Amino acid sequence: MDYFQKIKLIREQMQLAGIDAYIVPSSDPHASEYLPDYYKTRAWLSGFTGSAGTMVVTQDIAALWTDGRYFIQAAKEIDGTDIVLYKLGEPLEPTLTAFLYEHLNEGDTVGFNGFQMMTKEAENISIALIDKNIHIDYTSNLIDKIWLCRPYLPCEKIIIHDVKFVGETSKDRIERVRGAVKNLGANCHLISKLDDIAWLLNLRGNDIPNNPYFLSYLFIREDDAILYVDPLKLNNRIIDHLHQAGVKVKLYEDLLLDLEELTCQHAICIDKAATPYHVYNVLKAKAKVIDRVNPTTLFKAIKNTTEIQHLKACYRNDGVAMVKTLYWIHKHIGKTHITECTVDEILTKHRKKLPHYYGKSFDTIAAYKDHGAIMHYKATEESAYVLEPKGLFLLDSGGQYHTGTTDVTRTLALGPLTDQEKSDYTLTLKAMMALSKTIFLENATGTHLDTVARMHMWAHEMDYKSGTGHGIGYFLGVHEGPQRISMHPSDAALMPGMVVTNEPGVYRAGQHGVRLENTLLVVPHTSNEFGHFFAFETLTKCPFDCNAIVKDMLTTEELLTLNTYHESVYQALHKDLTTDEQQWLREKTMPL
Amino acid sequence: MDYFQKIKLIREQMQLAGIDAYIVPSSDPHASEYLPDYYKTRAWLSGFTGSAGTMVVTQDIAALWTDGRYFIQAAKEIDGTDIVLYKLGEPLEPTLTAFLYEHLNEGDTVGFNGFQMMTKEAENISIALIDKNIHIDYTSNLIDKIWLCRPYLPCEKIIIHDVKFVGETSKDRIERVRGAVKNLGANCHLISKLDDIAWLLNLRGNDIPNNPYFLSYLFIREDDAILYVDPLKLNNRIIDHLHQAGVKVKLYEDLLLDLEELTCQHAICIDKAATPYHVYNVLKAKAKVIDRVNPTTLFKAIKNTTEIQHLKACYRNDGVAMVKTLYWIHKHIGKTHITECTVDEILTKHRKKLPHYYGKSFDTIAAYKDHGAIMHYKATEESAYVLEPKGLFLLDSGGQYHTGTTDVTRTLALGPLTDQEKSDYTLTLKAMMALSKTIFLENATGTHLDTVARMHMWAHEMDYKSGTGHGIGYFLGVHEGPQRISMHPSDAALMPGMVVTNEPGVYRAGQHGVRLENTLLVVPHTSNEFGHFFAFETLTKCPFDCNAIVKDMLTTEELLTLNTYHESVYQALHKDLTTDEQQWLREKTMPL
Repeated sequence: MDYFQKIKLIREQMQLAGIDAYIVPSSDPHASEYLPDYYKTRAWLSGFTGSAGTMVVTQDIAALWTDGRYFIQAAKEIDGTDIVLYKLGEPLEPTLTAFLYEHLNEGDTVGFNGFQMMTKEAENISIALIDKNIHIDYTSNLIDKIWLCRPYLPCEKIIIHDVKFVGETSKDRIERVRGAVKNLGANCHLISKLDDIAWLLNLRGNDIPNNPYFLSYLFIREDDAILYVDPLKLNNRIIDHLHQAGVKVKLYEDLLLDLEELTCQHAICIDKAATPYHVYNVLKAKAKVIDRVNPTTLFKAIKNTTEIQHLKACYRNDGVAMVKTLYWIHKHIGKTHITECTVDEILTKHRKKLPHYYGKSFDTIAAYKDHGAIMHYKATEESAYVLEPKGLFLLDSGGQYHTGTTDVTRTLALGPLTDQEKSDYTLTLKAMMALSKTIFLENATGTHLDTVARMHMWAHEMDYKSGTGHGIGYFLGVHEGPQRISMHPSDAALMPGMVVTNEPGVYRAGQHGVRLENTLLVVPHTSNEFGHFFAFETLTKCPFDCNAIVKDMLTTEELLTLNTYHESVYQALHKDLTTDEQQWLREKTMPL
Repeated sequence: MDYFQKIKLIREQMQLAGIDAYIVPSSDPHASEYLPDYYKTRAWLSGFTGSAGTMVVTQDIAALWTDGRYFIQAAKEIDGTDIVLYKLGEPLEPTLTAFLYEHLNEGDTVGFNGFQMMTKEAENISIALIDKNIHIDYTSNLIDKIWLCRPYLPCEKIIIHDVKFVGETSKDRIERVRGAVKNLGANCHLISKLDDIAWLLNLRGNDIPNNPYFLSYLFIREDDAILYVDPLKLNNRIIDHLHQAGVKVKLYEDLLLDLEELTCQHAICIDKAATPYHVYNVLKAKAKVIDRVNPTTLFKAIKNTTEIQHLKACYRNDGVAMVKTLYWIHKHIGKTHITECTVDEILTKHRKKLPHYYGKSFDTIAAYKDHGAIMHYKATEESAYVLEPKGLFLLDSGGQYHTGTTDVTRTLALGPLTDQEKSDYTLTLKAMMALSKTIFLENATGTHLDTVARMHMWAHEMDYKSGTGHGIGYFLGVHEGPQRISMHPSDAALMPGMVVTNEPGVYRAGQHGVRLENTLLVVPHTSNEFGHFFAFETLTKCPFDCNAIVKDMLTTEELLTLNTYHESVYQALHKDLTTDEQQWLREKTMPL
């Protein structure tokens, strides 16, 4: 079926259902960023495959909203359709709600799948349209009726995340959440977010590529908890594990039936931003709703001492795989046929040998020359450049291990560089080191700390169109909140035990890209009359490429920081390297 | 009447009116920060005289909320009463709404004067109490009934702010606002904010000390506008001026009567955060309400070329008064009896001689030794220290001129300093210069830029418990939004033409305070593939005290910045100084 057939069918279904505007969001019922194929409804209908974007269809127009990461890709992928592309964040473009307001008449109906739209977003749409008396239909799931060869829901096996890696039993974690929920005045708690559930239960799955989650809901009550999940994903060991945590198992589909049983005696804590509108409508009709961010979100962001100990080893090991790969490139560049894809294969081969390896944490970005300027580039056999002994090569990758989730970027000088390439590299290094070394006050958020890195770019009349960093899970999502480091407003203070990436960059479209990324752990620094101060400890162990550095651009203090870091990299890694690799790393980490 | 008599009377009135909790806010009907005496109801009832604070009275308890600036002062002023002090921003203290929620029973009534509470705040209270079915009484003005010797409403004369200082007629300003209002889908606009009205009409008043406003409302319609104001404040020239701008005059009290005449054909633009709840209730019953920040707020924040030209001269002149005062202190310290009050008198005497002077822009903070650590210290004849030739003296002051509003702080070494005093001074200077010299991207807000200054403190495990700077009016409020530079989240981007202060500091309670404050103008810097970049131009012309500087703590670049600034100060000011003053300034501004 091509786009025009699909859009014709959905418009027929809209007429049958009395729907004037149909919204096709980019979500599963769990507010996931990355989706199982089954839920890629917007990608199926529009042809745009990016991870963020919402489509709206009326009888006259089809429109798509996406953000800055995807403007180019979306335009390319919807070429040949009649879809109008609207760019989020561009002040002159209508927002989705403004579009709906303009295109709908008094008394019209807006439809969407109430399992694929979270409550907060649905309420925002509802509020924006309030004076047009618009009806909301969240139960007519029109895509279901026209997507015939739809992929099945995933059904991958669940595994136990051993308590030796975690330092806290599932029972204790649930008890902590139960206490927090009680403090909010609630007596039960529904969690829809998959990473929260996986963390709480010390279980991992494989339903979404690179994200070790399993589709489920968890309903926590005062005396027990129920996991709604496809039982085919379980085995007796897991059922036993759940039993020890006081968790019963029911069918994934049974959630709504059980929620129907709630009464006005129930005060249920949910997060409207991560609870499907359909589910919300069922429970709000029965029980008192308390809308809060899941207590799990903050608990899981703050890594405990066991997790931190494993994370340090994990990042060290990951550094070994990185160094072996960098050495391999050094050894073969200009001699062997190496493409962007080859590097990904070599790196993955080395990671697979590491203890507790589970898989990639995201699709490797191996980007040579102008590909480096595409922030989320993914090499294919067709697109992949052959690496030559010149210019910049950007390598952004990570692994999932039982002992943590890694994310590291290095940009390499494959040979001679232009002055601009060198100065872009050095500036990025300065920005990155500034953030790594900063001391900051309790209650500072990533909005404040973003400036510490970005101001180095601004001083040279430059900028990067991304955040400086993101939170990162522990054998969970490579993007994990609540903390992040970006210009976006945030009320999530950086607290000891949190882990964030630090990845400024320079992107020159059509030319090259530089990104340098270390992962940082927030640690206590000192307390005095002015307050409590925190600092960062760098987890990543991997050398920077001194061939790309303009030494004169670094201050004495920056040189010291770089040299100290390089020495720590050598000391941490050399024992696990061959003699040749060792010698190469020794040279790469010599004081500048 | 003492506190206990007052609280007894108000509780009697509450019983008569059927009110279970009575809120006494700190506002006039115009969301003013500083109030005419008539509206200082909370100060009268509680005894706490700070500029921010809200009191709640029930039959059992009286409570007061205030912010960090006033914790010490409030505790002192309510000593001897039974008022419970709650500190805003302390996580363990109940918020006002949480307090009300806890202390009220189902079906109870909350009361307040609907002219002294803005709509947004009233709605927040209402939403927080929604599930307790609480009734809101905003018309029983209980303080009116018990405050017998209450001050009259002010009735100071209004003056014209000549168009030569402003570069734009009132007619043109109103037309600009009318266009913006139309774009928001409204056909009329009620402004309650006094600075917005004064700016729009090119008029100034004197109803509030240091703030050149006059109590009024302005109602802008498609073809005309009505100023609601006490006619005793006007003369024929002003009536003529208003006539030329298409503005009619009615009695201040007539507003509500006129709003009663609105119909469903009216779409009225108001700012709920600056419209009294009483007024809102009248107009929402009649017309369609569009809630937006007044367009005036942004228009007035961006100074035009005429204003900028006058501002530069104004700040230069203000610098002359400052330098004459600093020289006078230098000349007399250790020889004459000088108190904190004396300095204020001398400085004010010099400012009064300057062209277009109107008055102070705020109460001078002249603070010696440990008084400098009190952020809003005001010297009285009783409290004032005698200045001696040692230690730090902090002087924060400003003037109102027809050509602008100034705000400048210098901290002086009156003689020998301790090492800590010197290093605190130098650190403050570093932080201040860093912000002054920063280049930043379009869309950056004061939340992002606050870090540029504050990180210098953090690097030394220090901090200041205030924002780094605030917007400032043009012959208007010394605090003016929407922009400010602070850790608080803000969506107000810094735009060319905006003026902000830059005033980091170090405050050591019981020891000393350092604050250095320049006023900055946002100017365009450059545009390229990365975006539009802005920078700051320093308006303030006044030397720093090199005797307080630890030269080794400054980088080469910082020394250059300081020396260049000092040379510009000398060049700007020396012609208006006596020979002795000139010579002194020459020495004070020699390259370090």
